[in-house]
Amino acid sequence: MHTSAMNGAESLIRTALACGSDVCFTNPGTTELHLVNALDAVPGMRTVLGLFEGVCTGAADGYARMADRPALTLLHLGPGLANGLANLHNARRAFSPVVNIIGDHPTWHRACDPPLASDIESLARPVSRWVRAASSARTLAGDTASAIAAARSAPGGVATLVVPADCAWDAAPGPAAALAPRSAAPFEAAALAQAAAALASGEPCALLLGHRALRSPGLAQAARIAAATGCRLLCDTFVSRIERGPGQPRVDKLPYFPEQVRELLEKIPHVVLVGTRAPVAFFGYRGAQGPLLPASCRVHALAGPADDVDGALEALAERVGADRGALLAASAVERPARPSGALDVAALGQALAALQPEGAIVVDEAATSGFPYWVQSTAAAPSTYLGLTGGAIGQGLPCATGAALACPDRPVIAFQADGSALYTAQALWTQAREGLNVTTILCSNREYRILRLELGRADVPRPGPVARSLTSLREPDIDWVQLSRGLGVPAARAETADTLVAKLERALHEPGPHLIEAVLS
Amino acid sequence: MHTSAMNGAESLIRTALACGSDVCFTNPGTTELHLVNALDAVPGMRTVLGLFEGVCTGAADGYARMADRPALTLLHLGPGLANGLANLHNARRAFSPVVNIIGDHPTWHRACDPPLASDIESLARPVSRWVRAASSARTLAGDTASAIAAARSAPGGVATLVVPADCAWDAAPGPAAALAPRSAAPFEAAALAQAAAALASGEPCALLLGHRALRSPGLAQAARIAAATGCRLLCDTFVSRIERGPGQPRVDKLPYFPEQVRELLEKIPHVVLVGTRAPVAFFGYRGAQGPLLPASCRVHALAGPADDVDGALEALAERVGADRGALLAASAVERPARPSGALDVAALGQALAALQPEGAIVVDEAATSGFPYWVQSTAAAPSTYLGLTGGAIGQGLPCATGAALACPDRPVIAFQADGSALYTAQALWTQAREGLNVTTILCSNREYRILRLELGRADVPRPGPVARSLTSLREPDIDWVQLSRGLGVPAARAETADTLVAKLERALHEPGPHLIEAVLS
Repeated sequence: MHTSAMNGAESLIRTALACGSDVCFTNPGTTELHLVNALDAVPGMRTVLGLFEGVCTGAADGYARMADRPALTLLHLGPGLANGLANLHNARRAFSPVVNIIGDHPTWHRACDPPLASDIESLARPVSRWVRAASSARTLAGDTASAIAAARSAPGGVATLVVPADCAWDAAPGPAAALAPRSAAPFEAAALAQAAAALASGEPCALLLGHRALRSPGLAQAARIAAATGCRLLCDTFVSRIERGPGQPRVDKLPYFPEQVRELLEKIPHVVLVGTRAPVAFFGYRGAQGPLLPASCRVHALAGPADDVDGALEALAERVGADRGALLAASAVERPARPSGALDVAALGQALAALQPEGAIVVDEAATSGFPYWVQSTAAAPSTYLGLTGGAIGQGLPCATGAALACPDRPVIAFQADGSALYTAQALWTQAREGLNVTTILCSNREYRILRLELGRADVPRPGPVARSLTSLREPDIDWVQLSRGLGVPAARAETADTLVAKLERALHEPGPHLIEAVLS
Repeated sequence: MHTSAMNGAESLIRTALACGSDVCFTNPGTTELHLVNALDAVPGMRTVLGLFEGVCTGAADGYARMADRPALTLLHLGPGLANGLANLHNARRAFSPVVNIIGDHPTWHRACDPPLASDIESLARPVSRWVRAASSARTLAGDTASAIAAARSAPGGVATLVVPADCAWDAAPGPAAALAPRSAAPFEAAALAQAAAALASGEPCALLLGHRALRSPGLAQAARIAAATGCRLLCDTFVSRIERGPGQPRVDKLPYFPEQVRELLEKIPHVVLVGTRAPVAFFGYRGAQGPLLPASCRVHALAGPADDVDGALEALAERVGADRGALLAASAVERPARPSGALDVAALGQALAALQPEGAIVVDEAATSGFPYWVQSTAAAPSTYLGLTGGAIGQGLPCATGAALACPDRPVIAFQADGSALYTAQALWTQAREGLNVTTILCSNREYRILRLELGRADVPRPGPVARSLTSLREPDIDWVQLSRGLGVPAARAETADTLVAKLERALHEPGPHLIEAVLS
């Protein structure tokens, strides 16, 4: 490579650094090698190899949730992007800022339709709020600044920049300056008045909180409002991030199944939306409907995900006359005791709630195995909780990897279902290579248990042999201890609650990644 | 589920069976459960669970290459399809007939934009020749017949049918009859005359063969032509399938790097294309060009992939006066001896060539570790060879899985690079569950070695620490023996050629899947 003048690749990396993006999750190929070389030529970018692109994109999502700025992913043409799409779908639903740099054939080679060519933009659009194919090295730095500004614009999202190889290797004028992202939109006075009136109505009322309303500033205002008005605090079933524990108000998650949500909301005639939208069914069922709010429930949309939720909540607190210093009374719930005996999902959640260290980041892709944990952990040590926003499984281990890179001083716990973990188990290797403090609790029920439940809901109370086989992870059983060790992460198995407690305690005290296979009874 | 009347799901499965598709590779979710139940209700469809969708689509590709008819994949919404796209890209480039059934939310639920909703058609189009979203259970059977006919139409390809859940559970009139796929197009008389004239010119000439020209009937005609005219037989660098060994003519693969191809073709002024197109560079390099035929070379396009290649080759053989019974003289090359000593890529290929049983199916995703094998195996026992047509890595283990399901009586050998295997190692579990006779030779060089070579070609003779780190699979080393056992496949390690020979011989003699980690020196 000629180093006398800056090339497009170097202008891209320098621009990203100038825009505050200094981590790159990558699995590069031949079309990305000039960008790889630029990562050597330009100091300051932390580069992390994933052995599969779903690890890179899921890590970028986890990183963004904790760092509040976009990492880059650097991926290899259409297939490399394709492998990362499922976790980009989750990132999109989490409003996580992520900037994908997708290498492509040189502009002049596309007409040859070489084997790896495909319509990258068609693949990118469903997950991206911003897509562009660079056309020249001269304009690549500007494209990069635009991509990063698009990803950072409220409420945050995925931007995808396709970089033909010649745009990387041709001479470039230099880096571009950062562009200002679009800020959160102001809330509307009428919406504020409507929400305040609902809270003053004397009828039961709830704030349904999402996205940035679940960070500490928003939660503090929500706590003031709840203290002043007695309203309930709810959040979406799947949240990108929420702060929890003593010092934070109690927030109840909407349940997973639609009839449970409807039952809950039937008792609440007023729901004020802050940072989210009106709830919809995760899946549509025969004879059911998608929207979940009963006719008896009035919705008051105070602020959506792209709006100034902190300002809206503070204004609402003032409007309802909340005490500035008010917080909800500390919960009377005791931190749970360590469980003993059989290892079922109740004991599993209790063990985690009992042992999670202060400041832990809990990444929950435990699916059915994690159902009891939310309530059990109400009084657990303060933590940050990250959820599966888009429903695309295989998110937990990569997300934990990215969160650990964003917060090297905080312990990360991947609370992880087995079926989902099998999608992107390669993340364990990246955790080992980077020496990350991630403890994975691998919930081994050896089924896609959610599908067993859903079969019953689909009028199949007694599934046939095909349905049983397709929802079973047995024959043969997965040996997670060997699988994890094969990928470089020390592992142990627990078949009782007592063993789980002992192994978990030890793993949390030792630096570096660990996996504990919790074999559920 | 109400069984009194047929529902859409059952009409889809019955239609697929009527069209000759009786294998389904799947990882279903909630939106697919009525289809899963139909797989129980309707006998005759073999269902195979993959723990990741890339396994399902790669297996469908391998199945199609060996069975010459499409399997179904049954995948869960946009993210499920996304996870399978890379291997659908390979299937597309192999002209493999594959029919994707992608479950989706009920039609009435899409407007709610639930978390798992995305633009499935935008994701499907880049890999599919046919895409349709079903609109009603009443027309679903017809959609299915259309999808299968589209996949089977010459030269074969990927069809994607999106099935909203209500189209599966609503009442349906019954299955649809099979539709006739589009046949191969006739070759043109003028092209035949031109090709015959080239062969009669007295100048060096080659047939460049692709797709169906590499099956036994086409190869027999190519052998007659070569015997009569002295022309060379060449094939694309990456072929979907070719028959090899004694009884088949020698066919030389085009080399991988463009300058090697140009050097070869500079000596051949006439190239007749049969079942393929003029060669292009796999990647575009700085200062290079995409098309690979030198100006001195004249191209004679006799038949493309969608044309009647067998008819064209037979007509050409007649035209050049080839002897009906003529075959090339049996090669004088001896079947290679078993190697001994250090385990390098030469010994690796030699071991496979020496030991591969008669009738083996060799799935080659060995990348740089497989470079010597093609020549070494010229005189090996008769075999069918499947290549990485689209360049999207992670194809070998799934493809071997599908090939083994298509040909239960034939041994399958997955000749597999380590970096690529890490993309879709979950295929090992499916091999274990289905008891498939797949022997994986896992070529463990602990690098993305092709990228090390490409770095040198990208003017980076001394890669920096980032480039070295991003092309290394070390720190930590992957332990393939543990990884394989964790997924249920017995495994062993070989660090010398002698151990490899012993382990390989044993694995080939024992039923069921095995993996041998060949640690390369």
